[in-house]
Amino acid sequence: MTTLSPPSSIELVEVAPRDGFQSIRDRLPTADKQRCIQALLNAGVTRLEIGSFVSPKAIPQMADTGQLVEAFANRPEVRFSALVPNLKGAELALEHGIREIVYVISVSETHNQSNVRRSTTDSLQELRRVIERVRQIEGSRLRLDLGTSFDCPFEGTISWQQVDRILSSALALIGDLPLEIALCDTTGRATPYQVADYFTQLRERHARVGVNWAFHGHDTFGMGVANALFAISHGATAVDTACAGLGGCPFAPGATGNTATEDLLYALHGGGITTGIDLSKLLEAADMIAALPGGQTASHLRQVPRQRVS
Amino acid sequence: MTTLSPPSSIELVEVAPRDGFQSIRDRLPTADKQRCIQALLNAGVTRLEIGSFVSPKAIPQMADTGQLVEAFANRPEVRFSALVPNLKGAELALEHGIREIVYVISVSETHNQSNVRRSTTDSLQELRRVIERVRQIEGSRLRLDLGTSFDCPFEGTISWQQVDRILSSALALIGDLPLEIALCDTTGRATPYQVADYFTQLRERHARVGVNWAFHGHDTFGMGVANALFAISHGATAVDTACAGLGGCPFAPGATGNTATEDLLYALHGGGITTGIDLSKLLEAADMIAALPGGQTASHLRQVPRQRVS
Repeated sequence: MTTLSPPSSIELVEVAPRDGFQSIRDRLPTADKQRCIQALLNAGVTRLEIGSFVSPKAIPQMADTGQLVEAFANRPEVRFSALVPNLKGAELALEHGIREIVYVISVSETHNQSNVRRSTTDSLQELRRVIERVRQIEGSRLRLDLGTSFDCPFEGTISWQQVDRILSSALALIGDLPLEIALCDTTGRATPYQVADYFTQLRERHARVGVNWAFHGHDTFGMGVANALFAISHGATAVDTACAGLGGCPFAPGATGNTATEDLLYALHGGGITTGIDLSKLLEAADMIAALPGGQTASHLRQVPRQRVS
Repeated sequence: MTTLSPPSSIELVEVAPRDGFQSIRDRLPTADKQRCIQALLNAGVTRLEIGSFVSPKAIPQMADTGQLVEAFANRPEVRFSALVPNLKGAELALEHGIREIVYVISVSETHNQSNVRRSTTDSLQELRRVIERVRQIEGSRLRLDLGTSFDCPFEGTISWQQVDRILSSALALIGDLPLEIALCDTTGRATPYQVADYFTQLRERHARVGVNWAFHGHDTFGMGVANALFAISHGATAVDTACAGLGGCPFAPGATGNTATEDLLYALHGGGITTGIDLSKLLEAADMIAALPGGQTASHLRQVPRQRVS
């Protein structure tokens, strides 16, 4: 297993506004979301998944994503992205001014069915249409979220060869469009050496100019920070995290959110790896997010006496 | 930073009976301790820090360590150790049949004063006497716990050069006695790259036959699993963990125990690294430990639906 030297910087993609807010059963007021996003930007967050363009019937918590995008239209230096499951979502996102489309396909057939209600073959067909649309809008780019890249709640462990098959098909469609590929540990069940192995195998097979690699993880099994660091040691240049570790599911005890941004930040800064984010201001944002009604958080750093965090 | 290939096996030192039980304010009945230790051995634990030989006035929770050692005298295949702060403790431990003496010195002068009520110079003098005693008992060995190797609650960050100074003095006394050196992150504030760096620097300076390296960590800052894996990648062959993550301090909110044995075990087994421990049986022990009155636990794996853990 070849390990790369630690990089000098890492991009953290803040996903609390998407993966986190959608986990709160009762819809948050848009103004509360806006306040939290503002606090995140104040802390220096440079990339932020602001929401998703999906059916408001399926996920009512995300119905105000367009409004939020417009509210932050005056922050062109921040890279905002939005998750979409289909062409309609991509079109809405682009109309509202989003320039990074996060298209999601689950590697596991059953999870893709449950998540976006179509087969992976149909998701790939739809990706073709999304790409055509993205190509038409100057300055827009694509991120591919490969859900259940390590484990599926229905099928169990997913092999890197299964990821490779979907990824190969997707890359044939994407061509030279600037791309970020995210291997997503949707369930948090991946282990660090598994993450290292999948990044090594897949990057070796799909090395190409203009492609970056990202890791999206959850801390459910306590592997969150370690998985992210192993992904980074094996080529990921961006990692998704959620401030305060907001997430989980009120109906699934033990399920937790994405790895807390502040926890990973602490690990990275301790190694001299920069992120552009100010930890103490981020902890202020974390306190604000943790105070949201109905939210479930999981942050280690927030529990530590503040004067010990530096 | 040179990274070693993952090892084929790692020794986990179960410290819940020492670092964990001493964190419970009201003394546990000896029979309860015995039941938990039995469950840990049933899970395949091969090394266990059974308690400490200290003044019962200072730490009444450890007053029955001698009884526990005798209760498990019929398990010679298990490597039991006990922590001692001085010659008197070492003598008591050896009298009760302990053959691995864990002698603790804090790198930080103020922490050593607070922990064992003497200067580090006096602790080194006492170490000389402990070594003489250990040398007289056939088959006995020494482990040196370097407390606050990364951070001190009073002095803040500790440099590896400070660790190096104490370690050099200790090694000059220890000579060719079989030895394990544990770098202890007493506060949980160490970060993974820091851990990697300290192991690299110190192992390079003190490479010698008959010396093994260990890491002792806490999960307070959420770095527990990552720190342990980085220690392993940089030469640690043993790691201290506490089943169920038992620990913390009832008077210090946010302080947590040692990294949960089951969490690290899950990470290691996921990489094909063996420990000799059965995860599902260990989770049974974790449930037993978590049910102890007054205990404070912090385990991710215990929160996950049992059928998802394998």
